[in-house]
Amino acid sequence: MSTTTETAVTEEELAAGRRAYELDRKHVFHSWSAQKQITPMTVTRAEGSYVWDGEGRKLLDFSSQLVNTNIGHQHPKVVAAIQEQAGKLCTIAPQYVNDARSEAARLVSELTPGNLDTVFFTNGGADAIEHAIRMARLHTGRYKVLSGYRSYHGGTALAVNVTGDPRRIPNDYGTSGTVHFHIPFLYRTQFHAATQEEECQRALDHLEQLILLEGPGAFAALVLESIPGTAGIMVPPPGYLAGVRELTRKYGIMFIADEVMAGFGRSGKWFAVEHAEGVEPDLLTFAKGINSGYVPLGGVAISDEIAATFADTPYPGGLTYSGHPLACAAAVATINAMRDEGMVENAARLGTDVFGPGLAALAEKHPSVGEVRGTGAFWAIEFVKNRETREPLAPYGASSPAMNALIGASKERGLLPFANFNRFHVVPPLNITDEDARTGLAILDEVMEIADGYTEG
Amino acid sequence: MSTTTETAVTEEELAAGRRAYELDRKHVFHSWSAQKQITPMTVTRAEGSYVWDGEGRKLLDFSSQLVNTNIGHQHPKVVAAIQEQAGKLCTIAPQYVNDARSEAARLVSELTPGNLDTVFFTNGGADAIEHAIRMARLHTGRYKVLSGYRSYHGGTALAVNVTGDPRRIPNDYGTSGTVHFHIPFLYRTQFHAATQEEECQRALDHLEQLILLEGPGAFAALVLESIPGTAGIMVPPPGYLAGVRELTRKYGIMFIADEVMAGFGRSGKWFAVEHAEGVEPDLLTFAKGINSGYVPLGGVAISDEIAATFADTPYPGGLTYSGHPLACAAAVATINAMRDEGMVENAARLGTDVFGPGLAALAEKHPSVGEVRGTGAFWAIEFVKNRETREPLAPYGASSPAMNALIGASKERGLLPFANFNRFHVVPPLNITDEDARTGLAILDEVMEIADGYTEG
Ligand SMILES: Cc1ncc(COP(=O)(O)O)c(C=O)c1O
Ligand SMILES: Cc1ncc(COP(=O)(O)O)c(C=O)c1O
Repeated sequence: MSTTTETAVTEEELAAGRRAYELDRKHVFHSWSAQKQITPMTVTRAEGSYVWDGEGRKLLDFSSQLVNTNIGHQHPKVVAAIQEQAGKLCTIAPQYVNDARSEAARLVSELTPGNLDTVFFTNGGADAIEHAIRMARLHTGRYKVLSGYRSYHGGTALAVNVTGDPRRIPNDYGTSGTVHFHIPFLYRTQFHAATQEEECQRALDHLEQLILLEGPGAFAALVLESIPGTAGIMVPPPGYLAGVRELTRKYGIMFIADEVMAGFGRSGKWFAVEHAEGVEPDLLTFAKGINSGYVPLGGVAISDEIAATFADTPYPGGLTYSGHPLACAAAVATINAMRDEGMVENAARLGTDVFGPGLAALAEKHPSVGEVRGTGAFWAIEFVKNRETREPLAPYGASSPAMNALIGASKERGLLPFANFNRFHVVPPLNITDEDARTGLAILDEVMEIADGYTEG
Repeated sequence: MSTTTETAVTEEELAAGRRAYELDRKHVFHSWSAQKQITPMTVTRAEGSYVWDGEGRKLLDFSSQLVNTNIGHQHPKVVAAIQEQAGKLCTIAPQYVNDARSEAARLVSELTPGNLDTVFFTNGGADAIEHAIRMARLHTGRYKVLSGYRSYHGGTALAVNVTGDPRRIPNDYGTSGTVHFHIPFLYRTQFHAATQEEECQRALDHLEQLILLEGPGAFAALVLESIPGTAGIMVPPPGYLAGVRELTRKYGIMFIADEVMAGFGRSGKWFAVEHAEGVEPDLLTFAKGINSGYVPLGGVAISDEIAATFADTPYPGGLTYSGHPLACAAAVATINAMRDEGMVENAARLGTDVFGPGLAALAEKHPSVGEVRGTGAFWAIEFVKNRETREPLAPYGASSPAMNALIGASKERGLLPFANFNRFHVVPPLNITDEDARTGLAILDEVMEIADGYTEG
């Protein structure tokens, strides 16, 4: 399927994979898992839009792992840049000046909307959120934080407490002042709305009511994924982000756009907030796509106003690897490769020409598909038991035999899906070939046939 | 001074450094700093125990950056391993099995004391602490956390709230249930003790009282740096860690040994807790030395009992880069190089043969030195105005013109120090040559002469 010349998987690779599996089961503690109830898949190799499993099977990666390998696996220019920087300078403490960090900060400042001219680098998305909230609190002198239900903002205590998905629940103690609101999501509307316009207006009314009831002067920050990702890729209706920007201005609340998943081209623009023309957040958090996760990196892009708060007053936060040279060199190479190869434009085109129409046709055909929605290389498929009631094929926060069957059937057919509750997400690398994208859709077509068997009637 | 053949710093390198500085001042937000009040040093090159600044000056790195480059800069075996892994597989999601991660987990399990047989990898030290506390809370079903004053545990909300240094203060809201105790520190005793035995016993009494007053059944965890690092390298008196282990057992509290700074050979043993024979923590957090910070990595080594809690119940925590292949490959290469080259043994020898006697002689000679203390390649020098009153040369939590003068004088003489409040720490790479170690001590001798000028009388 792929056009590169590949060497066959060797017996050596397979043996190494088997040994890795054995050691993993003895010594590796896996995130979000009951350790004895998982049989993790081994990955022995990855290239472009493909990964190879422990049996040597080649799988088309429609997940980009955790939606981070936006440039695909093992992009040669980025691999070369990492190797070069490794040979030059792997690490240096955050207090020194480093050329890779400087250039990465310059590029992020250039690409982000508005006057986000300064960049604080972290290791990943969760600490980016933690530091963004801290900056907002110290800048405003306020404490409370607003965030959406159906969101994910990270695994550390504060980040998981502003999160609005089931992973928050077992962690929901020890943090006060976090208030959750409903985001617009017409397909499962909380506002009894019939149209996107109505959903948008009612969601904004709801948000303003909440601010007034919780204390209009109480909020330091509102954290919002520009397009909620893991929770279901709910592209906000036109006017919603502008409305949120207006409300946050009105009440002096810092608007933190979480672009950890939606950013760096995923949505067909560099940042998803740019789909709402003229909307400029006060802080923008990023990770994943900044360097496709080749080296751990995240960060916060900071408005000039907030940066000014820390011009003469120390910012009380930091981490040993802030602005790590190797991670920053990977970011510089990734951004340059994305620009040179037009990957963001390609993601937009894939959305318009391939995934948009392709998924719409599948939705039309298969009664198990309640809705498809998305933009760029960022799409969700809602599997339902019943199109009328919209009852999901797995309950909120859980799996189901039906969904497990769909995941298994996908893998059997050579497709690695991103699955969450009753949804599949179509989130391949932004530079996937049209042929591979269509191959993936064809496999989904087959899998949906199986899904149809789980529908009522 | 160094034995490797070096090329001269080129005009090109210097020009790149100047451009990096300019961009840094425009776009990089630095941790723990008032952004407009710093003039950060540029680092253009680093090798072994040396770094080169923006003017092409070579400096002996007595800081190991943030006490992380335990193997020195640019260790050829580790650089090669990173380059090789980069060419093979940079990243893969945490849910899959990866050979570099499996082997890193095996090595950490093998090296850590007791039955810490499972490893959860994070990006750095702060998130290691966050996850260790979460594991302890869920394992015990309890909530409160004990930690020491004069400690540092990281920059995220929960980690900075268990921290007991001034950096906690501007962040000390939003987390409840964190209780701080006094650790033994005879030189500035809180217990009016005259001997190490007395300090130890009184510190343990104090801790038990605190547990009883706060609720003997309330505590999930006690977090303690096996040797407190940034706060001043206070090697615990004999019996203290064993006493803490006994108290935590008695009250069903999980003992989290924070080895982020003290671990991986720094103290002259693989882990500093091993100096207290037979003391086995329930959880052990690490970062920094695991791969010398060449690629961001941290983690938690987990006892079999705690791992069993999450055998059939999901652990509610994670992060995109958990067990990152590139970071884990660097860890494997680092640990192997440390073993092959006897770096831990060398650190122990340096402590006994070079730094111990060398620093003792300097303390004898210079009235500005109140105390030197440490082990291995992990030493602190307390600068005081007055040896009798022990008044520090900079107040707790602050700097002073005197300390700034010492830092400047060190750099002028070609030594990059680690400074904190009124202290210098002597924390070079574990494989520093004896010659370089002695050169550094000779420079400190000169700098202490300047310090003596700030003493009273
Ligand atoms: C929108 C969003 N924010 C934050 C995070 C947390 O990032 P990390 O896993 O790197 O901590 C994620 C991770 O999936 C995310 O999707
Ligand atoms: C003992 C200790 N714990 C935790 C941390 C936090 O590690 P990180 O900066 O990687 O978050 C540090 C960092 O200096 C440390 O010294």
